[in-house]
Amino acid sequence: MQRIKRLVKHIISRINVNLKPMGLDIEQVLMESIPFDELTKYYAYYALSIDHPLYFRFRESNLGGTYFLGKCDVDRSIVFLSDIRGDELKTKNTKVQFGEVKTELYQDEIIQVINSYLIRTLVHNHSRNPEIPEYFRILNTAAMYYSNIHGTTTEGVYLGAFATADLSVLHNCILGNYAYVQAGDLSRVCIDPGRIWIRQEGKYEFDYRYSPVTIEKYVSWDQNGELTGVFAKFLKGRRSDFLPVYDSLTASENQIHVPNHAFLSRYAVVKGDCIIGENCLVAQRAYIEDSVMGAGANAQENSFIVNTECADLCVVAHGGKMIYTKLGEKVFIGFNCFLQGTVDKKISIGAGSIIMPHTIIDAEEPVTVPEETLVWGYIANQNDLKNQSMSMAEFAKEKRINLGNMSFTGDGAAFIKDFQNRIDHILVENGARYDGKSHSRGHAQKTQSVSYNLFQPYLAGEKEGLFPTIVVEDN
Amino acid sequence: MQRIKRLVKHIISRINVNLKPMGLDIEQVLMESIPFDELTKYYAYYALSIDHPLYFRFRESNLGGTYFLGKCDVDRSIVFLSDIRGDELKTKNTKVQFGEVKTELYQDEIIQVINSYLIRTLVHNHSRNPEIPEYFRILNTAAMYYSNIHGTTTEGVYLGAFATADLSVLHNCILGNYAYVQAGDLSRVCIDPGRIWIRQEGKYEFDYRYSPVTIEKYVSWDQNGELTGVFAKFLKGRRSDFLPVYDSLTASENQIHVPNHAFLSRYAVVKGDCIIGENCLVAQRAYIEDSVMGAGANAQENSFIVNTECADLCVVAHGGKMIYTKLGEKVFIGFNCFLQGTVDKKISIGAGSIIMPHTIIDAEEPVTVPEETLVWGYIANQNDLKNQSMSMAEFAKEKRINLGNMSFTGDGAAFIKDFQNRIDHILVENGARYDGKSHSRGHAQKTQSVSYNLFQPYLAGEKEGLFPTIVVEDN
Repeated sequence: MQRIKRLVKHIISRINVNLKPMGLDIEQVLMESIPFDELTKYYAYYALSIDHPLYFRFRESNLGGTYFLGKCDVDRSIVFLSDIRGDELKTKNTKVQFGEVKTELYQDEIIQVINSYLIRTLVHNHSRNPEIPEYFRILNTAAMYYSNIHGTTTEGVYLGAFATADLSVLHNCILGNYAYVQAGDLSRVCIDPGRIWIRQEGKYEFDYRYSPVTIEKYVSWDQNGELTGVFAKFLKGRRSDFLPVYDSLTASENQIHVPNHAFLSRYAVVKGDCIIGENCLVAQRAYIEDSVMGAGANAQENSFIVNTECADLCVVAHGGKMIYTKLGEKVFIGFNCFLQGTVDKKISIGAGSIIMPHTIIDAEEPVTVPEETLVWGYIANQNDLKNQSMSMAEFAKEKRINLGNMSFTGDGAAFIKDFQNRIDHILVENGARYDGKSHSRGHAQKTQSVSYNLFQPYLAGEKEGLFPTIVVEDN
Repeated sequence: MQRIKRLVKHIISRINVNLKPMGLDIEQVLMESIPFDELTKYYAYYALSIDHPLYFRFRESNLGGTYFLGKCDVDRSIVFLSDIRGDELKTKNTKVQFGEVKTELYQDEIIQVINSYLIRTLVHNHSRNPEIPEYFRILNTAAMYYSNIHGTTTEGVYLGAFATADLSVLHNCILGNYAYVQAGDLSRVCIDPGRIWIRQEGKYEFDYRYSPVTIEKYVSWDQNGELTGVFAKFLKGRRSDFLPVYDSLTASENQIHVPNHAFLSRYAVVKGDCIIGENCLVAQRAYIEDSVMGAGANAQENSFIVNTECADLCVVAHGGKMIYTKLGEKVFIGFNCFLQGTVDKKISIGAGSIIMPHTIIDAEEPVTVPEETLVWGYIANQNDLKNQSMSMAEFAKEKRINLGNMSFTGDGAAFIKDFQNRIDHILVENGARYDGKSHSRGHAQKTQSVSYNLFQPYLAGEKEGLFPTIVVEDN
């Protein structure tokens, strides 16, 4: 393992060059978090699809358990049990516009992960990086358990557990546990744990802060550097269900009916009685148990849908978790939401509602969210909705809101509109609206004819844990 | 599948350029044999070992179900359910001597498979090619079911089913079904089915010919181009036992005790009660059922060992098959031998005996071979041994033998000695004599810490059945 240890030192040094000036020394965090004894345990895998341009280059890295799609270059990194999804990479000659400035890609966009440590991280590209649109870059970055890097290049960034960097530009930046940002340029900014910050320069700004006590309850570290809290406990209890899925090479095809234009990843868990509707997308590492997925509904990576009904066109974003929940049509569940009902304390969300990223509804009594409602923050009972939700029509009329721990300034209508447009974009991209015509095909249809290539590291000697250099090209 | 069809045409044209002048048009044979509907069915896999120099390059090929080890370059070929074993490739700067001439390798040796079609073929290098020792080349070659290419470059060669090309140099050469050659330069030679021909220029020559009727019974083709006969029937009946082995990623570890320095490939089948001795090697695609493998015994690729006892240091070469057989110490079972006993018609082979490659003992009564006996050809009963075997001590005294369908001229002692030296080489290479010291490690010990990388072809579109271009390098 000498080579892996040298690699870890290298990654620490590169991240520290960026973050020590910000006051964070990454060494202890990383040393406690890197699962040295598990680095040879899981295979990495990449998808071969006829619908996505293909190119992989892996060098001097450990990639245990990680999934790759699209064009990816990983160099001198540890990318552990993560998803690097390049299915919305831009192709050569695509015209892009950033504000007033137009430009054209001189080559296909590629995801580059360099000098970085990612553990159980979701990377999804659809980038809006104006500086080098050809490279979706994750450089000198540490991303902890269940963090999301979405449409955002990160250079010199620390993402805490369950943190999400969404459609931003981050240089030398620290995101606390369960923080969510979608706020443009965040260079040299430190984001507190549990802060939900959405800012569109000149348009609007939304800011919510969880109380530190709540964050501590749901996401924290014990004295050994182990992730603890309600989220970790929830996930650990379900981890073993993934073992047979990853051990077998044959998808258990007859377990459940999958309509012709729906896609159920063979790397998803399906337990109990489930129904998958037409044009559904159930991604790898999604978990569905005794639940219904309506037509065009989608369950993204690390989502858990248990004893839950999702009506048509519901979107459960990366890391969204639901137990005993009922969603009306076209409900959106944002990144890393946690909706925990029980058999006698169900959660019900009305049609068209938007549950904002990083929302927690942990029901101590039945909770009902009306239709067309925007919901955020921490909710334990029906009364909490007063300060943590608002009808979307009301919100759209506002220019300034102060409600509980949330403040909003700017154009409420634009804020709602942007959210809705993005949900529509997700539905289209995922193929939820596929009507049999080629131009409406999305991920659910494009991923149908996919095969997987599995690769492993050296199991002994000084290279133990290191993967060989692999280059895969289309032919 | 357009690309695959183009590839097949290309391979046919390149083989025909070589073999049409020899009177063989390969087109019909190949078109009937290529399993077009199975080309997307099996994953290929390569081993990552810390003891073997690693380099793979795969281009414009189908590699369904094939195993690779060492350094291999496959270009414009179909290599189906085969084993390309480069574990005895020479390294850079190795000094080699061919007759009087000495030379030194200017780079690591690599196996190159170009413009070729291999189906269920075993390729094992240990080459003795004096012309380009850096390249173990399989060029413009068609190798049919269960043929062996062993230590032999082949350029413009057709190998029939169960044929073996061993330690030869073959250019534009045709080997009939179940033919075995180990005969030096065989350029522009056509070998009849069932001919066993061993020739060392100036030293000795052994020549045996099966009757065409016997060959027809054991290896033949039906009018649809399907392989038939006793061998094919035997193998087909056991094929389904390999499915769970290839479907699962976890070796079924607790099924059987494997001593510390023995190696049981996770891609071997073990059924019923089996015992594996210390320093044993059981290779991928070997099949053991209710059998005992003594210390240092080895079961090579495509060997089937059923209700059989192998004493210490027995060698079962590639494709050796035994049912209800008992082997004394250090018995050698050559390539594609078929020893079929039954519960009341057992076969017993005395210690130190050599069952020559391509020997058939199909017992219609119990058959007992004494110790230190050389056996060849076709044997159905005890009486057949008269013409198809000889005590090794006797053989060593002879200069000329004519016995049944066998003729021998030359130095009998050298013939026996060369065989024994080769068996010793096999035992050493396989680690059968490992004594805990590093220099005596062999394949059984070196393959301990091996991991496997699995890769698949495109599943749809014009590239259906084609694998992507993959380059794997050590780092």
